[in-house]
Amino acid sequence: MIKKINLAEKFSMFDEYWSPKIVAELNGQQIKLARLKGEFVWHQHENEDEMFMVIEGILTIKLPGEDLILNSGEMVVIPAGVEHMPVADEEVCIMMFEPLSTLNTGNLQGDERTHENLEWL
Amino acid sequence: MIKKINLAEKFSMFDEYWSPKIVAELNGQQIKLARLKGEFVWHQHENEDEMFMVIEGILTIKLPGEDLILNSGEMVVIPAGVEHMPVADEEVCIMMFEPLSTLNTGNLQGDERTHENLEWL
Repeated sequence: MIKKINLAEKFSMFDEYWSPKIVAELNGQQIKLARLKGEFVWHQHENEDEMFMVIEGILTIKLPGEDLILNSGEMVVIPAGVEHMPVADEEVCIMMFEPLSTLNTGNLQGDERTHENLEWL
Repeated sequence: MIKKINLAEKFSMFDEYWSPKIVAELNGQQIKLARLKGEFVWHQHENEDEMFMVIEGILTIKLPGEDLILNSGEMVVIPAGVEHMPVADEEVCIMMFEPLSTLNTGNLQGDERTHENLEWL
């Protein structure tokens, strides 16, 4: 059964921050949605590039030496090994595209923000 | 150098139909943008799942036995081996996530619509 995925509908199903939800899987990758608000934590992913796309709101991605400001309809790929910290002054809804192996806190595996078994929507 | 990608800006850089452009690469996958109008061709991808997300417009994905209608903010994953034909009555702008190996016409390698070396935007 092939079903379409409506982003607005999926976002309406949860309201926690920093807790990515899986909406699709393909070619060993997952498409995840998350609501962010506040500061996350500096981290990196040793083996995975990570894509952030803003669906609604404004997201700052802090990188060593610069801040990237992403508005709705903008995305960025953070290459493996690059430290970054997402920051959202106001609530932001994002979509991510990541390998199955990706942990949200990357190298900080035991962090209080780490989510190991993500929920499917 | 990590640069953000603005979808509207990228779409403004081309106007051909059925000619996907690459905007990002990560984990052996590519993010592609395309403008579609009219009927494509029935095809399948033997080894690759394919994701279509509508950025603007309305896209019909014809599948064996049903039609999926995707509006802006909706996506679908077509599993490897499933025949499908995208149809756009009016112009539609889409984003795709696909492995590097994916050919736009899938099993129809010699089709007149086949694009082998995609342009980066």
